[in-house]
Amino acid sequence: MIVAGASGLAGALAADLVWHHPKLELARASSRSDAGTRICDLHPRHRVPMELTELDVDAATDCDAAIVAYPHGAAAPVVAGLRELGLIVVDLSADFRLRDPNVYADWYGELAAPELLGEAVYGLPELYRDKIRSAELVANPGCYPTATILTLAPLAAAGLIADVVVDAKSGVSGAGRGGGDRLSFVSLTENAMPYGTAGHRHEPEIAQELAALSGSSAPPLTFVPHLLPIDQGELVSCYVRPAREVDAEEVRALYAERYAGEEWVEVLDERPPSMREVRESNLCRIHVDVDRGGRILAFGSIDNLWKGAAGQAIQNLNLMLGIDENLGLG
Amino acid sequence: MIVAGASGLAGALAADLVWHHPKLELARASSRSDAGTRICDLHPRHRVPMELTELDVDAATDCDAAIVAYPHGAAAPVVAGLRELGLIVVDLSADFRLRDPNVYADWYGELAAPELLGEAVYGLPELYRDKIRSAELVANPGCYPTATILTLAPLAAAGLIADVVVDAKSGVSGAGRGGGDRLSFVSLTENAMPYGTAGHRHEPEIAQELAALSGSSAPPLTFVPHLLPIDQGELVSCYVRPAREVDAEEVRALYAERYAGEEWVEVLDERPPSMREVRESNLCRIHVDVDRGGRILAFGSIDNLWKGAAGQAIQNLNLMLGIDENLGLG
Amino acid sequence: MIVAGASGLAGALAADLVWHHPKLELARASSRSDAGTRICDLHPRHRVPMELTELDVDAATDCDAAIVAYPHGAAAPVVAGLRELGLIVVDLSADFRLRDPNVYADWYGELAAPELLGEAVYGLPELYRDKIRSAELVANPGCYPTATILTLAPLAAAGLIADVVVDAKSGVSGAGRGGGDRLSFVSLTENAMPYGTAGHRHEPEIAQELAALSGSSAPPLTFVPHLLPIDQGELVSCYVRPAREVDAEEVRALYAERYAGEEWVEVLDERPPSMREVRESNLCRIHVDVDRGGRILAFGSIDNLWKGAAGQAIQNLNLMLGIDENLGLG
Amino acid sequence: MIVAGASGLAGALAADLVWHHPKLELARASSRSDAGTRICDLHPRHRVPMELTELDVDAATDCDAAIVAYPHGAAAPVVAGLRELGLIVVDLSADFRLRDPNVYADWYGELAAPELLGEAVYGLPELYRDKIRSAELVANPGCYPTATILTLAPLAAAGLIADVVVDAKSGVSGAGRGGGDRLSFVSLTENAMPYGTAGHRHEPEIAQELAALSGSSAPPLTFVPHLLPIDQGELVSCYVRPAREVDAEEVRALYAERYAGEEWVEVLDERPPSMREVRESNLCRIHVDVDRGGRILAFGSIDNLWKGAAGQAIQNLNLMLGIDENLGLG
Repeated sequence: MIVAGASGLAGALAADLVWHHPKLELARASSRSDAGTRICDLHPRHRVPMELTELDVDAATDCDAAIVAYPHGAAAPVVAGLRELGLIVVDLSADFRLRDPNVYADWYGELAAPELLGEAVYGLPELYRDKIRSAELVANPGCYPTATILTLAPLAAAGLIADVVVDAKSGVSGAGRGGGDRLSFVSLTENAMPYGTAGHRHEPEIAQELAALSGSSAPPLTFVPHLLPIDQGELVSCYVRPAREVDAEEVRALYAERYAGEEWVEVLDERPPSMREVRESNLCRIHVDVDRGGRILAFGSIDNLWKGAAGQAIQNLNLMLGIDENLGLG
Repeated sequence: MIVAGASGLAGALAADLVWHHPKLELARASSRSDAGTRICDLHPRHRVPMELTELDVDAATDCDAAIVAYPHGAAAPVVAGLRELGLIVVDLSADFRLRDPNVYADWYGELAAPELLGEAVYGLPELYRDKIRSAELVANPGCYPTATILTLAPLAAAGLIADVVVDAKSGVSGAGRGGGDRLSFVSLTENAMPYGTAGHRHEPEIAQELAALSGSSAPPLTFVPHLLPIDQGELVSCYVRPAREVDAEEVRALYAERYAGEEWVEVLDERPPSMREVRESNLCRIHVDVDRGGRILAFGSIDNLWKGAAGQAIQNLNLMLGIDENLGLG
Repeated sequence: MIVAGASGLAGALAADLVWHHPKLELARASSRSDAGTRICDLHPRHRVPMELTELDVDAATDCDAAIVAYPHGAAAPVVAGLRELGLIVVDLSADFRLRDPNVYADWYGELAAPELLGEAVYGLPELYRDKIRSAELVANPGCYPTATILTLAPLAAAGLIADVVVDAKSGVSGAGRGGGDRLSFVSLTENAMPYGTAGHRHEPEIAQELAALSGSSAPPLTFVPHLLPIDQGELVSCYVRPAREVDAEEVRALYAERYAGEEWVEVLDERPPSMREVRESNLCRIHVDVDRGGRILAFGSIDNLWKGAAGQAIQNLNLMLGIDENLGLG
Repeated sequence: MIVAGASGLAGALAADLVWHHPKLELARASSRSDAGTRICDLHPRHRVPMELTELDVDAATDCDAAIVAYPHGAAAPVVAGLRELGLIVVDLSADFRLRDPNVYADWYGELAAPELLGEAVYGLPELYRDKIRSAELVANPGCYPTATILTLAPLAAAGLIADVVVDAKSGVSGAGRGGGDRLSFVSLTENAMPYGTAGHRHEPEIAQELAALSGSSAPPLTFVPHLLPIDQGELVSCYVRPAREVDAEEVRALYAERYAGEEWVEVLDERPPSMREVRESNLCRIHVDVDRGGRILAFGSIDNLWKGAAGQAIQNLNLMLGIDENLGLG
């Protein structure tokens, strides 16, 4: 295994999970900015005493698989190089998540390796488990899309969403390392704010999957993320105007049925999930209700670095390798 | 001046603001639980060296005015007693906020002094300034209603709200002192969660004022509060389906017009407000936009203990006393 | 296995660690205050779906071992009852930590079961591993003593401590659940303070072990704890006036030698440890240096709920049961 | 008034305090990095709608006074330029704090304007009030020195310090804006750590003043700063081995006497101060005790941006201008 881009928060966690995984071996972890530093020195909370190296794609022939944790745009060429050598790849960037390259272009610019779009599978196991099993390139979903799609999937699949507002709240690690003044402790402690209100790049990803689930075009969607003074964690509060009148019992039955047997999705009947209770786990916890006015309230909580990034990457990799989907995520 | 209930967070701040007010004199501050303790010892951040006493309503004849910061239910009899002696009163509880006693009964139980409802004025100066000037009993609004009503008033008055979702986020001080395990540092740090999803008592208050503004019945309203790991601060994110198509320019003009000349309401054109930037101030900052799907996004931020409680109480008191509305709020 | 007192923070973590332990079976978890509630509902971050029960000591004959997480004073009778039935016990309270019952009486009051003092072993494996292996009652050390004694042991054993100041910093979970106003989020966020400056109960425990290590009476010790706005974590900053002149190289050699081969003690040569890097682990990380004035600076960091309580309890239990000392702590 | 360097945390607060000061007028505020931005846009918590400009020293002739908030090294030439034009200056950097240029050189490098050392007064009003009144250049003390010197001054002046350990704890704003990864929210939340253990630049400043107070060379001093997950605030815990046996009563009398009549120093007899209780104020709160072993414990708490920087600068400026020392600090 190679983890490329292991100095970032998601990449470092991916390297940690591979390092401690019972059936995977971490051959190399690379970094563009921190080669020469050990992971455990850069991120003392990860006890991985491996030194980060410069990535040499051509030398990757000794490996079978890679996790790529590069920013969008930078990821595609690396993924293409690794795929050429035959490695199976889980890509944490946005580069292969959007099936329509025009939509990608609208939000991110020109895609570097469009020829790979055809083989890329959207890596949400609860939706695409079988396809992931036979995939050689998996586009790992964004953190907000993971939480939102899991929280809305049963409603979307039942054609129940007339329109939906997603008020999303994220911990700061969702924004990555560094970030200067905007992400400094002084700027964020005792603070909270909306951001990206003019349009956030995770919106088309959510729309794509809600459309796929409902078998038609996506329902009207308003998505507004907020930054909270929390390290890891994400909570989506979804407000759905239903396509027809429903009650809590009916919608809860939909969730119970869809997520029966899912290891990492837990439906709570009694109360909404908090952020903290899924921290450092691959869980998504969901609660759904119908308010007095008939609106559906659906809340979902994940750890953005686990189920929203590195944990889900391991889950996908396990599936691609034909081993137990939950290995190394205990 | 008497501040009754000055051991709680809002009451203590009210006592502090009166203590440092250039034209008010704090004669006594009372507490049911902490009589005998100085305010500055109970709340070291408030430098008010006055000892809390047991409230003796009958001895209040030496005062002209009182702020009552008791829980709902307990407030009404005290307010009634003080009014009988002729004091003007700002009541921070919910007891006189709802003009329809049946609505009060649905959410809080039987009202103790319904005979005072007729004279109580809802204490949001930006809506009821003239009435407050001549009032002898002001019902200080709840923190969520203050932020929500100010954030939605221009739209409600223009009849533009077809339906509205309010996703509210509050710091912990909104829940008051103590609170045991649920409000402990260990339970809340690095955590966030929805609560009161089955219905929150601030909802009918919001509905009452939106109806009054629009001159008809209140638009369908979903109100969901969330608890954040923050001390003081409140942010409401309001998602409005407009009654007719509007653009950002039109709605911003509505806000500019309504809030021109208001000292404590600032409309930001460029960005949504953060929680922190209004902390320890009586300000409400608002930003409004229209998203690609035509939905109106309106964000409002206040300090829940200032504009959401004690600061607004001083503002009301200044108006009732005929002095400069902004005195002591600098 | 029984975990008695599993509703508190340390007890709940102990129950969680036993529940997921490969060789232990959690038969029952008890609580005096929360019987009838499942652990995962009381503490959603612990995924243990077992219902808490009232403790029935007499029915404990089906078990071999118990962890008791009761407050001091309340623990001794329960421990005595379980020992009578033949269970081996790790006691998290202070009741059997102090070998001299007079010292116990000075700090805590009369000890309920002094007859057990003779068989109790102080449960710091890095000091008493062999004795713990054959013990049937282990007194699990306090969190501050664990961090402090590990951080000072090599110096004490070498007779190098002429006098020592321990400035200790703890997260809030060290103070247990609840705690009312004093431990509320509002009281503690953005705050820090010394406490117990007139004498803290962990002081005699530290003195006892420093004396045992140095083979004479304890060196003069000043111990001052501070509360920080952090959930889990503990850092001790120890300032040692050495008995004779030393340099950094010499003292580092002492630490390297003593802790060689220890799984849970890591000596850092380059930098002091932070609190966060050992969180949710059984590690103690230590750094030692000598300043320009010749004073020895020794810093140690642990997770107060792991190495400072429940993690160390499992480590002790593993030793007592003759299984791999590190099982279930990975 | 000019505030030079008003984009940093201390400079921005200084600009805010001048802006709202009843007798000062903020003519210009400059920034090397953010000219063209309004202070209230860069730091929304400061409601100062003035645009930052490039500093033009030569054009400063229209002003009488300046506060310079530049990094050390960069400050001296600016201060020299302003002094040449005749402005009185409060300099927040370290450039003129150390009376011995060789000591400065050891810790900071070559001093740019050594000719000004002779006229610079160390700006701790509680020590040098009379000199500050007639000074034209005041070197505003560092935050740690302010807290430490105030907390130790009565002991130093009485010759009571045989040796002293200062365990200092600071909020993050003490480290200034930005700071990249090291000062990011993700790195610091739920974390705490010692830093600068090999020697911190505030140490010689503390030593210089303790020596001056005791009239001899400075007592042996160990100074170790720690970073806490707090925005503003500083707490020093000082452990003094006394030169002779003392008791709590005697040392408290020393503090009471020295600080009688001081507006901004409060001595607490009953309990140590917390960080939060002096936040957003110019106060230093101190508590002193003697432990069972005879060591003196002295704790001091300030807001590092107020009494530790900008607040003290205003206090100094008021003195230099011959107006009420406490104006604008209310």
